[in-house]
Amino acid sequence: MRFKGRDVISIKDFTRDEIDHILKVAKEMEPLAERGSEMLRGRILATLFFEPSTRTRLSFETAMYKLGGTTIGFAEPEVSSVKKGESLADTVRVVENYADIIVLRHPLEGAARFAAEYAEVPVINAGSGAEEHPTQALLDLYTMIREAGRIDGLKVALAGDLRFGRTVHSLAYALSLYDVKLYLVSPSLLRMRREILEDIKGRIDAIETEDMEKVIPEIDVLYVTRIQRERFPDPAEYEKVRGSYRIDLETLRNAKDNLIILHPLPRTDEVSPEVDMTPYAKYFKQVRSGVIVRMALLALLLGAVE
Amino acid sequence: MRFKGRDVISIKDFTRDEIDHILKVAKEMEPLAERGSEMLRGRILATLFFEPSTRTRLSFETAMYKLGGTTIGFAEPEVSSVKKGESLADTVRVVENYADIIVLRHPLEGAARFAAEYAEVPVINAGSGAEEHPTQALLDLYTMIREAGRIDGLKVALAGDLRFGRTVHSLAYALSLYDVKLYLVSPSLLRMRREILEDIKGRIDAIETEDMEKVIPEIDVLYVTRIQRERFPDPAEYEKVRGSYRIDLETLRNAKDNLIILHPLPRTDEVSPEVDMTPYAKYFKQVRSGVIVRMALLALLLGAVE
Amino acid sequence: MRFKGRDVISIKDFTRDEIDHILKVAKEMEPLAERGSEMLRGRILATLFFEPSTRTRLSFETAMYKLGGTTIGFAEPEVSSVKKGESLADTVRVVENYADIIVLRHPLEGAARFAAEYAEVPVINAGSGAEEHPTQALLDLYTMIREAGRIDGLKVALAGDLRFGRTVHSLAYALSLYDVKLYLVSPSLLRMRREILEDIKGRIDAIETEDMEKVIPEIDVLYVTRIQRERFPDPAEYEKVRGSYRIDLETLRNAKDNLIILHPLPRTDEVSPEVDMTPYAKYFKQVRSGVIVRMALLALLLGAVE
Repeated sequence: MRFKGRDVISIKDFTRDEIDHILKVAKEMEPLAERGSEMLRGRILATLFFEPSTRTRLSFETAMYKLGGTTIGFAEPEVSSVKKGESLADTVRVVENYADIIVLRHPLEGAARFAAEYAEVPVINAGSGAEEHPTQALLDLYTMIREAGRIDGLKVALAGDLRFGRTVHSLAYALSLYDVKLYLVSPSLLRMRREILEDIKGRIDAIETEDMEKVIPEIDVLYVTRIQRERFPDPAEYEKVRGSYRIDLETLRNAKDNLIILHPLPRTDEVSPEVDMTPYAKYFKQVRSGVIVRMALLALLLGAVE
Repeated sequence: MRFKGRDVISIKDFTRDEIDHILKVAKEMEPLAERGSEMLRGRILATLFFEPSTRTRLSFETAMYKLGGTTIGFAEPEVSSVKKGESLADTVRVVENYADIIVLRHPLEGAARFAAEYAEVPVINAGSGAEEHPTQALLDLYTMIREAGRIDGLKVALAGDLRFGRTVHSLAYALSLYDVKLYLVSPSLLRMRREILEDIKGRIDAIETEDMEKVIPEIDVLYVTRIQRERFPDPAEYEKVRGSYRIDLETLRNAKDNLIILHPLPRTDEVSPEVDMTPYAKYFKQVRSGVIVRMALLALLLGAVE
Repeated sequence: MRFKGRDVISIKDFTRDEIDHILKVAKEMEPLAERGSEMLRGRILATLFFEPSTRTRLSFETAMYKLGGTTIGFAEPEVSSVKKGESLADTVRVVENYADIIVLRHPLEGAARFAAEYAEVPVINAGSGAEEHPTQALLDLYTMIREAGRIDGLKVALAGDLRFGRTVHSLAYALSLYDVKLYLVSPSLLRMRREILEDIKGRIDAIETEDMEKVIPEIDVLYVTRIQRERFPDPAEYEKVRGSYRIDLETLRNAKDNLIILHPLPRTDEVSPEVDMTPYAKYFKQVRSGVIVRMALLALLLGAVE
């Protein structure tokens, strides 16, 4: 197993053994996240965000700083050479002269893979198009291990927009490498795409349903995503659906005591603020896992740990 | 007196003893501002600017870097998750997973106090709405001590827009904790709000006037603020007022030799460039005080000094 | 020869001896660019970009980080105090309280010189108006030395837009200090300005031509610049010209074996991607030279090396 110099474009590029190894290294990063480290002193991370994503950008920058490295980059394309018509291939070949590793966020599918082909330094995909968001999947797994002690044996519901939500595609695939029972809870209009579902079903049990209420008492992990109004041709349809996928204390009255609620954030109103005070709510702790997992990836790809 | 973990939302949250202590620690920061320090190595400051303020942002970042720490954040809300409809409460609970301390600038009154209630890490108010700007008041006080050797006994004029100017509200309150004589020099339309004035007058002598000329020979400190055209319904009224509050060599011909002129900056034409060359002009030195005082606050709130 | 505290506004402010010294120090920076350095620990660079230029900004920031320093600044004027009407003179006098050195990019000619007059800390011009871009010229020279082993004796063609291209003006002047034969290859509409040409011709042989094909077999260095559509009143004229200045494998069939192709980047289609794979292509290596040369300048101006 070798990570130094590798790209992180899709969760599918990794075997279960490799994912387990990343999660193990992440655990070793916990004390370094508290007290800091000089492991990557002198190394530079470039964050190239061709579409804004404050959370993801700050998470990577924090991870780099906690390891003693530093960062350059841009937070939105308006200020970049892209305005002058530069190709992504050229941008990447310029930036690799500045940075030891590149994190790329791009509105077009395939952009991260394309960039990685041109770059000699490692490229990490921080979201491209409606495709995968592999570091989000890794931090979701890490949060499950941290909060539930394990992934194997868990019953996990992915709820909300399973069709367009970029994070759930990576996560569903990743979970399918483990011994997990999956509930896919969504309005029929927002069901998980067939090709992703087929891929998962070959390996694990995945049940599609629209009925949140029935699923709640069964599960150990509830992963909630945003349902966007724009997805619905009929506003009335949206209003109907929205209510039945909103999580509040009432929805949770039959939940297991140790249920874990996760959310990739930002949320709007799909998880009620009253849930924040319950022991179920782990979505802010999930943010911390993001820093930990990204520290592990930076350290692995730059060869600072094995 | 304990500063570790505290928020800095309003100057009113601090006693005179506490303010004196901050100013004393600031003095100790002077040599560190020159030669640098590793006092906050590994610590991260988040600058969340929901409205742009380059000067204040760069001042806090500089303070953090001079203490060996590092910074993350955003300079304007367009690139943040706010666009996706995230609440300020959520933003703060996400960012405290990245940063050890948060500096917040926000267009809405009460935003900083609200954020501090949600954040477990210290929050510093870098301006919210038309409210106070407590670190500006602290750096104003520090500049007076540095340039005049003391605050007690000074005769201080606050001039210009005393109604909407957010910095003068904090400063007027802070000065009222000292033995200071205050002149409030403004057009009648821009007089200091009654409730602020009442609060101050209970403690010190504060004289309201429109006559800059009469005040000039009396005072030790002249604090000038911008008068914005938009505040006047009648443009002719603005033009009349503007001239009489403009500081130039002619205005200053009867000034005391050791008069100190301060300005929160940016200025437009309310202080003539010819004044820059006089020994009165301390507004650029005031900028340096901002770094010093913010170093002190970061060190105190993060527990690096007592 | 003394560099500490100097400004870098125009390549014309430097003698050949001084340029040679900068290039010599640059060579000494090569190992530090690989393994990092603490030479500028605690020092702060301000990047004030009143017009965006991602490449130049990231290059300076990288140079500073590789020497152990840190950076503050803004990438576009929308987020700066400039919106509030602050003058450049005031901005500079504020920022020098934060930073040990300032890099300025500005849309107006003369802005960098003006800023340097007000600032007590060194100011580096990163492009102002259609004027010079001195650090680009220095990195171009450094790339020639690095790739061709020398500058004296070279035959260099500057091709494309020689009238408006800001980089070629600085470079043409710099090359005229060496024993170089210069070919100025451009459409007649985009010939180099007379005053620049006169200045150069006093020192070296400079031949103006529109015929790229004839020049190619003669030269050691081909420096290509972008031809912008907006420069041409007649679109048909642009289309004609564009084709004849485009560099591809066909254009290069009579080139010398060790021809070096440079480009200030970003490019659009004036150098065909098929050229990237040839040994002629040095434009991405040129980017790395930018970091090296800027490291040398930062170290020299801040007095960390002599």
